Amino acid sequence: MKKDPILLGHGSGGRLSHQLLDELIIPALSSGGPAVQNDAAVLERPAGRLAFTTDSFIVDPVFFPGGNIGDLAVNGTVNDLAMMGATPLWMSVGLILEEGFGKGELAAILASMKRAADAAGVRIVTGDTKVVPKGKADRIFINTSGIGVLEHDLEIDGGRALPGDRILVSGTIGDHGVAVMASREGLELEATIESDCAALNGLTSALVSELGSALHVLRDPTRGGVATTLKEIALQSGADLLVREASLPVKSAVRAACSVLGLDPLYVANEGKLLAFVSAQAAERAIAILRRHPLGVDAVIVGEVTGKGTGVISMETSSGGVRVVEMLSGAQLPRIC
Amino acid sequence: MKKDPILLGHGSGGRLSHQLLDELIIPALSSGGPAVQNDAAVLERPAGRLAFTTDSFIVDPVFFPGGNIGDLAVNGTVNDLAMMGATPLWMSVGLILEEGFGKGELAAILASMKRAADAAGVRIVTGDTKVVPKGKADRIFINTSGIGVLEHDLEIDGGRALPGDRILVSGTIGDHGVAVMASREGLELEATIESDCAALNGLTSALVSELGSALHVLRDPTRGGVATTLKEIALQSGADLLVREASLPVKSAVRAACSVLGLDPLYVANEGKLLAFVSAQAAERAIAILRRHPLGVDAVIVGEVTGKGTGVISMETSSGGVRVVEMLSGAQLPRIC
Repeated sequence: MKKDPILLGHGSGGRLSHQLLDELIIPALSSGGPAVQNDAAVLERPAGRLAFTTDSFIVDPVFFPGGNIGDLAVNGTVNDLAMMGATPLWMSVGLILEEGFGKGELAAILASMKRAADAAGVRIVTGDTKVVPKGKADRIFINTSGIGVLEHDLEIDGGRALPGDRILVSGTIGDHGVAVMASREGLELEATIESDCAALNGLTSALVSELGSALHVLRDPTRGGVATTLKEIALQSGADLLVREASLPVKSAVRAACSVLGLDPLYVANEGKLLAFVSAQAAERAIAILRRHPLGVDAVIVGEVTGKGTGVISMETSSGGVRVVEMLSGAQLPRIC
Repeated sequence: MKKDPILLGHGSGGRLSHQLLDELIIPALSSGGPAVQNDAAVLERPAGRLAFTTDSFIVDPVFFPGGNIGDLAVNGTVNDLAMMGATPLWMSVGLILEEGFGKGELAAILASMKRAADAAGVRIVTGDTKVVPKGKADRIFINTSGIGVLEHDLEIDGGRALPGDRILVSGTIGDHGVAVMASREGLELEATIESDCAALNGLTSALVSELGSALHVLRDPTRGGVATTLKEIALQSGADLLVREASLPVKSAVRAACSVLGLDPLYVANEGKLLAFVSAQAAERAIAILRRHPLGVDAVIVGEVTGKGTGVISMETSSGGVRVVEMLSGAQLPRIC
């Protein structure tokens, strides 16, 4: 793999940079068009309000069961746009490469990015590549920024969790974080746990168009997991929440790996799941919409907004008690995305 | 400085991440508004076509005479938008921090970013922060992505250098690269050379509105310097160029430092200069427009497009000869931006 390594000169802006771009990066990522040679891509005027987001990816290991840093970077940014109710349109890719990183590995990562972008219907339109000396970065870091368009007037926002709203999760939780940690730690498992890394804009566009104003909040529980994301929404909305532990879907293999790794699945990152807050009347319809889609077959209602408040999350535990859920504290899972 | 270091937990997505965001990053960068708490910023529908660009910054050292990685990152992305003739509107900031980096240094960098954004009239509307373990990055890397709007129908493009066009440079060349290299190498100079790091959208908006369709190409000669940028434009346009070495403005201190460092100023990065290709008739007017502005007082005509061709750049040397100018080869100046 390392026979054809990235050199410092590939980041110089000169001849080697152009070679890497022309021979590897542009053919791998581009959807055609000459704009890639300019300092910025020029794009048609969008048909509505914009959503704009950025995310850097530093996951370790770079390749893990179910994905790699490339499709993770594309899907992560697609999902951030989707959670605002936007249709993802355009994406930028910023690569930071460590000198000595293999061109073969880079090509594999870029191919994953293109496949993920095509699957999500988003175009990679501009990019940048930097190279740092050996030991000054760890193989590859990727930034993706994205632009989406809001084709509606809804206000889908983390601050709109309303009393009575039902809380939905689109599927099993903890898969991504456990897949990465098990792979990093070389954990021997009976069955390989795969990351759930996927683009959720298919799910969100169905929810937006079919639920309309009954859809209040969408968010993907990545770093910090479901617990941290719910706490963010509760605080942002000034609302108290109730969650039923028994209704949270967790694969048995993930649960088993969590106990070996000392993790609570409620705090483990997901990369292909969403939380939705919808009015009580619309909750069953929302579940039906989600279950129609391959990425939402395990969708369930896991709780509700009990009322206005200071952002307290109470969890009915499987054993019948109640505990208060806080944000992730400390660094439970470094470099998970 | 290191008394209050960045911890791995600041990248966890949990409590420490929120603390860093709420206490340091958002107050430093935000222009107000609650959107920063969501996965993406929602922005009004723009009034024209969009320009979209991304750049990652890995400069070493992080602080150098005339600037630091923060204002460099803002101005670099502002300039990439400006070179398409766009008005920069919105920016994202992606931070990759090395565990142990000082919060004091981070605060200073963020303050520079805000000042640079305000000066350029661009709003930082969304961001992301990751932390990697000590030794897995080098202090701080910053990605900035930007969106601008094209308030006109002009096609300003690296492929539009036309026979007869005059080539203009907005000021002295090589300042940024030499400032960074001299600082990195601890070079003792008679006078400190400062980076020219600056936002060029004031210059470009004046050129766009006053020259109209006589303005064909704008580009800022960053990595690879004036030589590499001219070669890119020549190849992209299928045109041959003539450049007069004697007319290229180079500060004497920069020229002296270049000979000590073994550099050719023609290949050294600039961060506050632009190249413009304009019709012969408009050239003197373009110079007058540039010189009206503090960042363009040293603007001069340095050459012309001799005709259609294969992208050959001939340079009339100061000694009266002619040499062919190629792209930067190798890694003359690693980590210059």
